[in-house]
Amino acid sequence: MEINRDSLMPLYYQLEEIIKEEIDIGRYKPGDRIPSENEFVGLVKVSRNTARQALSDLVSEGILYRVQGKGTFVASKKKFVGLTEALSFSSEFKSNGGHLVTKVILSEEVKESPESLGYLKLKESTEVFRIQRLRLMSEVPVALQTSYVPKFFCPGLLSYDLEKNSLYEILREKFGVSIGYSAESLSCLKAEQYEADLLNVKRGSPIFFLTRKTFTKNGEIVEVTRSFMPGDRCEFSFGKDERVSLELNELVR
Amino acid sequence: MEINRDSLMPLYYQLEEIIKEEIDIGRYKPGDRIPSENEFVGLVKVSRNTARQALSDLVSEGILYRVQGKGTFVASKKKFVGLTEALSFSSEFKSNGGHLVTKVILSEEVKESPESLGYLKLKESTEVFRIQRLRLMSEVPVALQTSYVPKFFCPGLLSYDLEKNSLYEILREKFGVSIGYSAESLSCLKAEQYEADLLNVKRGSPIFFLTRKTFTKNGEIVEVTRSFMPGDRCEFSFGKDERVSLELNELVR
Repeated sequence: MEINRDSLMPLYYQLEEIIKEEIDIGRYKPGDRIPSENEFVGLVKVSRNTARQALSDLVSEGILYRVQGKGTFVASKKKFVGLTEALSFSSEFKSNGGHLVTKVILSEEVKESPESLGYLKLKESTEVFRIQRLRLMSEVPVALQTSYVPKFFCPGLLSYDLEKNSLYEILREKFGVSIGYSAESLSCLKAEQYEADLLNVKRGSPIFFLTRKTFTKNGEIVEVTRSFMPGDRCEFSFGKDERVSLELNELVR
Repeated sequence: MEINRDSLMPLYYQLEEIIKEEIDIGRYKPGDRIPSENEFVGLVKVSRNTARQALSDLVSEGILYRVQGKGTFVASKKKFVGLTEALSFSSEFKSNGGHLVTKVILSEEVKESPESLGYLKLKESTEVFRIQRLRLMSEVPVALQTSYVPKFFCPGLLSYDLEKNSLYEILREKFGVSIGYSAESLSCLKAEQYEADLLNVKRGSPIFFLTRKTFTKNGEIVEVTRSFMPGDRCEFSFGKDERVSLELNELVR
């Protein structure tokens, strides 16, 4: 793409659009060094200030990153194809050749207050397991997940190895829970200190926040999981195949 | 849920989890005032500092907001059920009772550089239309979309009213383009000044960044759209019905 000097769109922003196109079409790949400010001045005939603003904007957005003395590079993200499948994060999940490792941060019982029981339509127990897990792909944290599971579904849950086995597998195979469907909602917000520390990002950086509620085939709520995923590391893809992986959703977890 | 004093999870963070649960289960609804710091001290038996930190964290995350002299409230977000459908944003899109209005920020021609043509597998022309549209739901900006469409698909495109008609409808009905499928990828990043001004958010606030590539039934690329959606206003939902709305994807655009 070329700069349009008659456009209402500012020149620096047009240059950003050009760089994004180059990334989109794969000419600049993750990890590639892109031209310097001076090189852009020659390539697209803009002033040095314009080139500087475009590059620093894309750096602050997280699309590019700088290495002192080496230049400006295209940031790389893990692509998760199929939202629901990706976020079930079973212990065998592999993507982009990376291998997912799970670290249990804490696993414990908490009490549900009587009023919440009504809202959650839970009859039997007031105990809920809280399990917080960090998911690392090739040793880089990609998700912090906090799961709540009512104890009466799976009284001995915490004696199982939640780093080696998927929660869904344990629920199904050890406790005979028939997992039905999930409802998910995805926001993006700013990381606060607690998440930032565990995910190794800066406080205030943009993160995906995904809430998943999973129901049994009878419509009882069996799990609520809240996940934080760093915006600079994660990207979701949706396409032709999405329907397929979503259709498999109930099977693959 | 109640505070677990033996937990490894800090008390303030447990309180945040409790507040998130109350929001999740619908006891605190968008727009509701939640208890004050002092009220939480009495309700869950934590120190005032703990309550203060929990509330201010949730405010900085964008889950709560404060009104000077009035208290702390639950933030509300527009729910978009069905990612692809929601983001096609046809001119008749309605959700939550809100009505979507489209404002064209700019529409113009830009030249594609010869090298890009190869990457984009475009044979015929070097001209591309660039259309930037702001989408407002009940007068609040919810998306800034910049679309690129090769001119040879639709030579007179810019003479049509892109505020009243959906781009897909025009492509299909006026130019006989048979829209095939789309591939989308979703990131989250920080708003830069240009987007922030148009979307009426603060620079640096978290925003969804969605790239959609749309292909004809013959596999030619007919549209690339990059959309920014404020994290504090938008939320995507996925669930049982998602498959249905995705299946309709090719029809509803």
